[in-house]
Amino acid sequence: MMYDVVIIGAGPAGISAGIYAVSRGCKTVVLEKNEVGGLIGKVSTVTHYASVTEGETGKMFAQKLLEQARIAGVELVKAEVTGVDLKGEVKRVHTDQGVYTARKVILANGTSPRKLGIPGEMELAGKGMGMNAARDARAYQGKNVYVVGGADGAIKEALYLARFAQKVTIIHFEEQLGCIAEFRNKVSRTSNIELHLNARLHGVYGVDQVESLELVDEKTGAIETIEDPGCGIFVYAGTLPNTQLYTQLELCDGFIPVNEKMETELTGVYAVGDIRVKQVRQVSTAVADGTIAAINAAM
Amino acid sequence: MMYDVVIIGAGPAGISAGIYAVSRGCKTVVLEKNEVGGLIGKVSTVTHYASVTEGETGKMFAQKLLEQARIAGVELVKAEVTGVDLKGEVKRVHTDQGVYTARKVILANGTSPRKLGIPGEMELAGKGMGMNAARDARAYQGKNVYVVGGADGAIKEALYLARFAQKVTIIHFEEQLGCIAEFRNKVSRTSNIELHLNARLHGVYGVDQVESLELVDEKTGAIETIEDPGCGIFVYAGTLPNTQLYTQLELCDGFIPVNEKMETELTGVYAVGDIRVKQVRQVSTAVADGTIAAINAAM
Repeated sequence: MMYDVVIIGAGPAGISAGIYAVSRGCKTVVLEKNEVGGLIGKVSTVTHYASVTEGETGKMFAQKLLEQARIAGVELVKAEVTGVDLKGEVKRVHTDQGVYTARKVILANGTSPRKLGIPGEMELAGKGMGMNAARDARAYQGKNVYVVGGADGAIKEALYLARFAQKVTIIHFEEQLGCIAEFRNKVSRTSNIELHLNARLHGVYGVDQVESLELVDEKTGAIETIEDPGCGIFVYAGTLPNTQLYTQLELCDGFIPVNEKMETELTGVYAVGDIRVKQVRQVSTAVADGTIAAINAAM
Repeated sequence: MMYDVVIIGAGPAGISAGIYAVSRGCKTVVLEKNEVGGLIGKVSTVTHYASVTEGETGKMFAQKLLEQARIAGVELVKAEVTGVDLKGEVKRVHTDQGVYTARKVILANGTSPRKLGIPGEMELAGKGMGMNAARDARAYQGKNVYVVGGADGAIKEALYLARFAQKVTIIHFEEQLGCIAEFRNKVSRTSNIELHLNARLHGVYGVDQVESLELVDEKTGAIETIEDPGCGIFVYAGTLPNTQLYTQLELCDGFIPVNEKMETELTGVYAVGDIRVKQVRQVSTAVADGTIAAINAAM
């Protein structure tokens, strides 16, 4: 299947690129193995992106992207990319739905949540461990939950969970939260949020549900066991770039370097959003990346 | 009045900067002499910005920005900036509402529509000349209108006007329209739009309304007079950066050069959106600029 532009990933960067590429008259396909919206489609609330409404959920935001892309005439295909050949004039993107070719490819498949690699993480996944605040908060009404992480993404979800849970405990390995002032202030005004700093989640135990958590003190190495049957654990321990397939590109800490036109070292190959080397990772900068790449790809 | 961050201009770039600066705990004021929304607040429809809904008007979009900024706690002040002192550690912004000082200033006051400088432009302003599609389209229901310009902004408004007017004539000085494929295709599918290419509007005549237009043929120099009493003329002849007050900065074609953190040559002074040197001028890139500048200003 020959296109003008193939876009891998349907988060804000990929959708923005798709809308712009189509507007410039390019035959464009966006390949996505999961849902439109990317990681932001799974958050409880979208914050700070200019024009979002108060309390707008990731799901609502993703729905708007999907609808906008459809109306614009962007072709969306549910497909998993299995390999790419990005060299040469015509690039080839192999997927479980066939091979897509184009002179321009935009890599927009972002990052994935980092795993903790601790006992119980796999075994109890979905049974209390590794839950999703937007999806599961209501199931923890009146119960205890734990949020692992101290950056913006973690604290935003802790604040959301506090509206449902009896108590939210934030487990963070540093001495203080690493989030923005807005969230830090909101935490200090929220009476059912407790901070457990200088601590790492070390193991999760149980069979059909989480029965207990093991924490390690970062300073003393002491292990503390918390018995809390039926609690929920929400992990926001950073993300890793989805660049495993891009072995033809020189990476920088796993991310893709680009120039100001979002073009990589390979002519006709662009990288946008969280997958690229950048200072500021926000919805707005992802959307702008997609805009810039598509406009340049269409030239 | 001492602030952490003073932002000049409340378009998408300035509002995005304001929302981010406040979220980082900065005492922030946005100074705007007109309405929140900037030029985009005056367009008939906002297109391509990720998450806008079908047919969203500039006014609706501006309203969302205003509400979001208010909820975020951004202080908005209606004030006209009359002078700036951007050197030194504490910057001073003089306005008709007093002097605002801050260590960080974000220049976000964009561009203004370019005037044609032709006879009748001033005299007939608002009487048929220099009308605004979003505001005035309904007043031209069933009448003839003229759109001056061939770039995206002009053609978008021509398409909008075609839903109301009997006939829309696009006057453009080049051999073909300079707009994106999407708009060009829509024009060719719109039966009541006519192109008048290779032509410049040379004069507009009338007293209480426009009675006639004078066009010059770009190739032959021939002058054509069109008698069209009561018609409306909508001018989208490009924009000029609002940098007249920024004499302390080295400009590039009137625009402000910045680095990737949106910082100008003067420490603590940032420039975002259409006012800065940039390749891609879209709402999305303006919003991202504001995000990046505010996050860096807050560090």
